[in-house]
Amino acid sequence: MSSKNQRNYKLKQSWYSKNNRNQKGGGGGKTAKKNSVTKPVKKPSVKISFLGGLNEIGKNITLIECDGDIVIVDCGMAFPDGDMLGVDLVIPDFSYIEQNVDKVRGIVLTHGHEDHIGGLPFLLSKINVPLYGTPLTLGLVENKLREHSLINKVKLNTVNAGSTIKLGCMDIKFIHVNHSIPDSVAFAIKTPGGTIVHTGDFKIDCTPISGDTIDLSSFAQVGDEGVLALLAESTNANRPGYTRTERLVSESLDNLFKKAEQYRIIIATFASNVNRVQQIIDCAEKHGRKVAFSGRSMVNYMDVASKLGYLRVPDNILIDIDMLRKYPPEQIVLVTTGSQGEPMSALSRMAYSDHRKVMVGEGDFIIISANPIPGNEKTVGNVVDELLKRGCKVIYESMYDVHVSGHACQEELKLMHRLVRPKYFIPVHGEHKHLRKHAELAEFLGMERKNIFIGDIGKTVELSDDYMKEAASVPAGKVFVDGLGVGDVGSIVLRDRKHLGQDGLIIIVASLDVYDGHVISGPDIVSRGFVYVRESEGLLDEVRRLALGILEDCAEKNIHEWGVIKNRLREEISKLISQRTRRSPMILPILQEV
Amino acid sequence: MSSKNQRNYKLKQSWYSKNNRNQKGGGGGKTAKKNSVTKPVKKPSVKISFLGGLNEIGKNITLIECDGDIVIVDCGMAFPDGDMLGVDLVIPDFSYIEQNVDKVRGIVLTHGHEDHIGGLPFLLSKINVPLYGTPLTLGLVENKLREHSLINKVKLNTVNAGSTIKLGCMDIKFIHVNHSIPDSVAFAIKTPGGTIVHTGDFKIDCTPISGDTIDLSSFAQVGDEGVLALLAESTNANRPGYTRTERLVSESLDNLFKKAEQYRIIIATFASNVNRVQQIIDCAEKHGRKVAFSGRSMVNYMDVASKLGYLRVPDNILIDIDMLRKYPPEQIVLVTTGSQGEPMSALSRMAYSDHRKVMVGEGDFIIISANPIPGNEKTVGNVVDELLKRGCKVIYESMYDVHVSGHACQEELKLMHRLVRPKYFIPVHGEHKHLRKHAELAEFLGMERKNIFIGDIGKTVELSDDYMKEAASVPAGKVFVDGLGVGDVGSIVLRDRKHLGQDGLIIIVASLDVYDGHVISGPDIVSRGFVYVRESEGLLDEVRRLALGILEDCAEKNIHEWGVIKNRLREEISKLISQRTRRSPMILPILQEV
Repeated sequence: MSSKNQRNYKLKQSWYSKNNRNQKGGGGGKTAKKNSVTKPVKKPSVKISFLGGLNEIGKNITLIECDGDIVIVDCGMAFPDGDMLGVDLVIPDFSYIEQNVDKVRGIVLTHGHEDHIGGLPFLLSKINVPLYGTPLTLGLVENKLREHSLINKVKLNTVNAGSTIKLGCMDIKFIHVNHSIPDSVAFAIKTPGGTIVHTGDFKIDCTPISGDTIDLSSFAQVGDEGVLALLAESTNANRPGYTRTERLVSESLDNLFKKAEQYRIIIATFASNVNRVQQIIDCAEKHGRKVAFSGRSMVNYMDVASKLGYLRVPDNILIDIDMLRKYPPEQIVLVTTGSQGEPMSALSRMAYSDHRKVMVGEGDFIIISANPIPGNEKTVGNVVDELLKRGCKVIYESMYDVHVSGHACQEELKLMHRLVRPKYFIPVHGEHKHLRKHAELAEFLGMERKNIFIGDIGKTVELSDDYMKEAASVPAGKVFVDGLGVGDVGSIVLRDRKHLGQDGLIIIVASLDVYDGHVISGPDIVSRGFVYVRESEGLLDEVRRLALGILEDCAEKNIHEWGVIKNRLREEISKLISQRTRRSPMILPILQEV
Repeated sequence: MSSKNQRNYKLKQSWYSKNNRNQKGGGGGKTAKKNSVTKPVKKPSVKISFLGGLNEIGKNITLIECDGDIVIVDCGMAFPDGDMLGVDLVIPDFSYIEQNVDKVRGIVLTHGHEDHIGGLPFLLSKINVPLYGTPLTLGLVENKLREHSLINKVKLNTVNAGSTIKLGCMDIKFIHVNHSIPDSVAFAIKTPGGTIVHTGDFKIDCTPISGDTIDLSSFAQVGDEGVLALLAESTNANRPGYTRTERLVSESLDNLFKKAEQYRIIIATFASNVNRVQQIIDCAEKHGRKVAFSGRSMVNYMDVASKLGYLRVPDNILIDIDMLRKYPPEQIVLVTTGSQGEPMSALSRMAYSDHRKVMVGEGDFIIISANPIPGNEKTVGNVVDELLKRGCKVIYESMYDVHVSGHACQEELKLMHRLVRPKYFIPVHGEHKHLRKHAELAEFLGMERKNIFIGDIGKTVELSDDYMKEAASVPAGKVFVDGLGVGDVGSIVLRDRKHLGQDGLIIIVASLDVYDGHVISGPDIVSRGFVYVRESEGLLDEVRRLALGILEDCAEKNIHEWGVIKNRLREEISKLISQRTRRSPMILPILQEV
């Protein structure tokens, strides 16, 4: 055996010996059986089902089931992809929860981001389950439930980080973690079948802006006691190294505030990033500037955060956005939504001169304190261009260090694995590439591939000291919310929207004689989204003549089945249009009997 | 004056003294006037008009006009943005060229990329102008013109880098540059009004894969003779440092080929990147693998490049894609299109198991040898995820160094400015943020702001030794190509497509009595892309009753103007739908008289 192989071997041995030791403390695994005098009762297995958050970004929701009790971890929403036309938001398919509502003991929430709490109103309008979360998380949930008129129906239970609650057969410890919103927690869920650790979203920040550093000692303690499975987030599993501290932003902001002495400062960031806004307020105070908020969600978040004491606001520093004109520009900091270039956001409106209260121009120094989420690069770039065209200074490049991530990079993930030392590992929260990279990381740390489960939504995994196996799948999917409709937009509607959006449509309307099928009125040709009609009258005339010919031909031949007639219209008109234009609009024949 | 200020002052002085010296050599600027004995004839001014390529990526086209002669530099196309639904490609508005066709002496082409030559067929189908380009560029243009049946109409004039041609009053020197396609050139256009340097796309590569290093000495010489204006590309103006050499990729590929010994290798890259494919072929030869091409454009480009001698292909190394099964996988390299995740490309089809000839799986090692162009991050990410789910190994991260840019970074741009030492500077090829950053770079080098022009499409700038001023604008814009239609899809059609795509439509059809306006047949309600009809019959019934009520009410009240009736239908049905669903589908009333 080469020395290199020996090293690897040792590494794996030490992983296992530790793990076995831990299983002992954890309440009787294999090792415990050998040592104990009385044969222990057979432990129940633990089932973990994923309704969201795997192979996708967003709508995180995990079910932990043991001995007839289910605890739900988070209940998030996702934003629609570009191909989900007209969809406002995406929520999980809740049917498995509805079918098993009698087993559900509660929903525990890791933190107050939309991808972890945004699905709650839709679930809670169907079933009633108590919620458990930290003060800020529940403050944000409360707002959300009030908007959906659910506030009097649902029981909200505040739990502080460090506390443990009991839900059915499970003891759930809330463990403080660092993230881009305060009051975030991970869970150590002690079940009769073993302990499950779910990290939620986290990073390790040794100099956080508010609150303590992540509670590493609790993770270590749980690890010492023995952990059956670790579920850890994978958002940054592709990034080497450490995520930098949020405090770094303070220094960068301070430098930029100095540089922007003569300007009004506008900073766009995530509305939920209370710590970021805290740093902006602190910097504004230092430089003698007033702070105003722009954007509904920014105002809402800051309202909840300051009421609950998570945002320290010095006296007389906040002003209403309507008061902006009463102060010279160089004494203002405007904190706004729109860091992702969202078309209806405050910053976009400023960029396109569409904001009712703020006009931007050469006197503005604009800082985009966020990185574009994949898919938003183009819209953010367009907003930057518009602002530059209006003469604004814009700080948008990563080199200015005005943004740091809220998620753990590879070294932090490794540390979490080393502290928790689980028997099984399940990467969560991420696209497939992130889950896979996180799994590779665990293998690199010495875990055997067979002890790692890369899941998918709808998958259930069953765990015990002796095995990890896939169990029967549960219903899961993407439910689209469009306006007031939940789930009434499905694949057929989306397919039609895509077709209409790409190629437009041509409608052929005719009234036919109820007796002989001859055309009484029409055919009229109406098109939308196909060609500019005034310039294409010739083509549309041709379509009309062709349609009339088909209808009369059918009447002559005594073909009266509308299905047949419509099919002929669709086919022949499609062919004509394709020959003339190489396009394929939706062809919609509508016949009426008179 | 502080020492810092002094330094700045000196820098600017030296810039100017150099510049003045150059103007002298350039044929009589201000300084020349003083020294010469006879008063020189007044030089004509030079007008530069931009029909594309400013404040956008793509469709690069610039007009240089002097003394009644126009020379066109490049004639590119652009890919549609996400909001240009159904549009295949975007070309410039050529009306200014059509109006001035008698002045146009020729089109000179910098290189064979679509954003520089893709608009040619559409321009040349309207007017006939001779083309001038290097052998590879014209080889690619020839293919394009053949597809559009224009090959017999247009005169193609091959010019080798280093040569000078005369078009009207202008002498145009073709200067070799490095870029991500071989045979790229810049132009030094000597006009009676002064010399204009247009860099085209370029980088400085001291170890290029084919051909020489960029012809720095020609730029230096032109600079020595005096340059009125520099037009330089700005794609990477935001990136500090130097762009790395293409040769770096060889080493990375070699390492990956070693790692992938047991696998079939599939590499996705830009079809036009002949040098990249050269490196792949060289690496395949070294490792004893056969090479097959996949994707129509890949096959076309390689065909032209190898025929013209720009791609060195060892004997017996190329195999047809149909021959793949005859070789063991580990003796294959498949070079494919689809590095941008384009839905119809070869790689996407492999990822979604939709490729007729290639099935991918655990035996495949896939290298994406390209970075996502802004806006494509999400689609590339999705393709990577699908490939990973099929068990492929995928190399997609920048850390593997399997891609380098073809565009100059800041230090290279600075060098170009220092070599050319122009009186005026106009940044070209880039979004607004790139143009602005490039302008800041020029200022940093000591150029006065008033000598820098940040343009836009449709803008014309007039230059002489004494002034640079904006002249009257020319028509410019985005002309959409959709199928065979050029320009027949405009803002109204796009607005309708967007509306239809987001919200779908509801059609209300009724036949009315020609005498009294009462409903004879219908109203029938047809919807597409709105709701899943079977689950929403109640709502559509409600719409039908409302429509009937409105139509009968109008008949009772003797309202027979269809415009009025249709408006009432639209308004009241919109209101009902919005109340019930908070959505706003297109409402399309169609009435027929019987």
